[in-house]
Amino acid sequence: MQSHNMRASPFLAACRREPVSHTPVWIMRQAGRYLPEYRKIRAEVDFLTLTKTPDLAAEVTIQPIRRFGMDAAILFSDIMTPVEGMGVSIEFAPGPVVKDPIRSLQQVEALVVPDPEESVPFVLETVGILSDELPESAPLIGFAGAPFTLFCYLVQGRGTKTFAEAKGFLFAEPEASRLLLDKLADTMIAYLAAQAASGAKALMLFDSWAGLLSPEAYETFAFPSVKRVMDALGSADVPLIYFPNQGATLLETARGSGADVIGVDWRIPLSKAREVLGPDVAVQGNLDPSALFASRDELGRQIDRVLAEAGPTPGHIFNLGHGIERTTDPDSVAFLVDRVHETSSRELWDATCGDVASGV
Amino acid sequence: MQSHNMRASPFLAACRREPVSHTPVWIMRQAGRYLPEYRKIRAEVDFLTLTKTPDLAAEVTIQPIRRFGMDAAILFSDIMTPVEGMGVSIEFAPGPVVKDPIRSLQQVEALVVPDPEESVPFVLETVGILSDELPESAPLIGFAGAPFTLFCYLVQGRGTKTFAEAKGFLFAEPEASRLLLDKLADTMIAYLAAQAASGAKALMLFDSWAGLLSPEAYETFAFPSVKRVMDALGSADVPLIYFPNQGATLLETARGSGADVIGVDWRIPLSKAREVLGPDVAVQGNLDPSALFASRDELGRQIDRVLAEAGPTPGHIFNLGHGIERTTDPDSVAFLVDRVHETSSRELWDATCGDVASGV
Repeated sequence: MQSHNMRASPFLAACRREPVSHTPVWIMRQAGRYLPEYRKIRAEVDFLTLTKTPDLAAEVTIQPIRRFGMDAAILFSDIMTPVEGMGVSIEFAPGPVVKDPIRSLQQVEALVVPDPEESVPFVLETVGILSDELPESAPLIGFAGAPFTLFCYLVQGRGTKTFAEAKGFLFAEPEASRLLLDKLADTMIAYLAAQAASGAKALMLFDSWAGLLSPEAYETFAFPSVKRVMDALGSADVPLIYFPNQGATLLETARGSGADVIGVDWRIPLSKAREVLGPDVAVQGNLDPSALFASRDELGRQIDRVLAEAGPTPGHIFNLGHGIERTTDPDSVAFLVDRVHETSSRELWDATCGDVASGV
Repeated sequence: MQSHNMRASPFLAACRREPVSHTPVWIMRQAGRYLPEYRKIRAEVDFLTLTKTPDLAAEVTIQPIRRFGMDAAILFSDIMTPVEGMGVSIEFAPGPVVKDPIRSLQQVEALVVPDPEESVPFVLETVGILSDELPESAPLIGFAGAPFTLFCYLVQGRGTKTFAEAKGFLFAEPEASRLLLDKLADTMIAYLAAQAASGAKALMLFDSWAGLLSPEAYETFAFPSVKRVMDALGSADVPLIYFPNQGATLLETARGSGADVIGVDWRIPLSKAREVLGPDVAVQGNLDPSALFASRDELGRQIDRVLAEAGPTPGHIFNLGHGIERTTDPDSVAFLVDRVHETSSRELWDATCGDVASGV
């Protein structure tokens, strides 16, 4: 079954660094407000209701596949969704706001590691629907927030630019911080394993705020919690993707996480990222989402540059280096998906025939 | 006169990569809300009035020198101050908000390059007061925002996490963007030259948002405007500092800016930054501001680590990797300044006597 999927899915093959007929492509936040069909549904229901209504969450997950023919779908949900069951009260206004931010060991000790079947049955139901409805060519990626990123929200209480309170807590209360990171890791392990059991074909851990840390602090606090998750999920038998956002200087550590694929933002060329990451992991990325605002000529040039930097070695999944902006023209996304498929088919053919150099 | 200053000032000596008796230290945003004596003045006047009242701006600039004995003072001002004279209407609410964000070539063409004597006489008066009042051991650093960072505010209209509109404009309108960056560069050249003429002993260019760019986009757009400023100021005969914030992957390009000193944030160890930057520039940085929330033991360890990573080679100015947080305990700052002075005196003595290894 797994090998059948891999043949039918360039995305799953690329995750395993197997040869592919074209470079697979999907886009972070591909289900979202830049799409008129998404906005139509959001005109009827608010964001939270959407994430908690399986039929609707499945529908918006499928929308970009239907329109653009991406090579993977990603579950429509929010990284804070599985955190509520730990005993944290979260409101959306419109970003997540934690009612009582975590600021003491006592608060950390009071948190529980919930059973996802009880705390987020609607997510697992959504995954089940998608597992049935998605074509084999666009397998479902389940996901969760990485422990440090969730830690940032829980301690800070809301999104900010610097997460100063969260980072202050990390340095002032290292033991309480470690316990919180462990509990978050254990909650995400159960959450992701349940998604895989419900039909997700790959699992991705988003470490959106990893880039706030120095390499030393990352190695001390954030990385052990990532490795804990990856180690536990190794037996799930689906590819694991880890995205340390803005983590150019963290890749040397991140490559040891146990993930099959490392996501890379646009701040480092994929050629350099691959040098650091070595041959044993695939890479995912890394076009700047702002490039989608360039002229077609320039956008085409940028897409080809990313493909060239990734090189002909198997194990590249094309993506943006961060979520798509909501003011993006959907036609630019269509152009991107087609261009990745066309250029990479030609390049892979050329490379097979030995007609081109490394492409870097 | 210059050589006299350099002997009296470890900061100026370190900028020129001359030997020093101790590693000089100052702190970004050292004049600010974490200081009770600053808050006392701000209780009487708002931020804008403070920046535009020379006696008061000079007083808050001196406050941290008086309390902590840092090795340099930095002018109290705002990066948007010299931009208003270009013909842009800016309000503070509390961050800078541009009334009509720049979104067209026509708007860019309408901007002028003002004479700082006319547009910001109060800044030059502040510099003059400080030039008289500061001790030789704490020379005044004049500063400006780097063109790309000012571009972000002018196009976006206000501070955000991603500056999506500003970056979209960069890609969609590369020619108008280049013209805007050139005009901003020319305005900052005149502004910084006037600060030097009024008595500033060093000049620093803050590129707070450089880290939003890929190495390619940085080289195409932001870097040429930085080089334009540095080339023009080379004749000012004062050390030039350039800080590409979150620019770990941009250092290879930034080292060619013509700056004497490159500021480095905490996302890359100074040992690696020096490897990339080479022996011809000094480095400034790079303790994570959050480390000031750690226990004294841990803070001391982190300070010593930064000093060790900088190594015994001359040309290190100790600083935080970003501005100090306003909730920081002033006693932690006192500890930091003393610790840098003590550890570096001992280490430099040891290194001179050949008793220690490279310290890295």
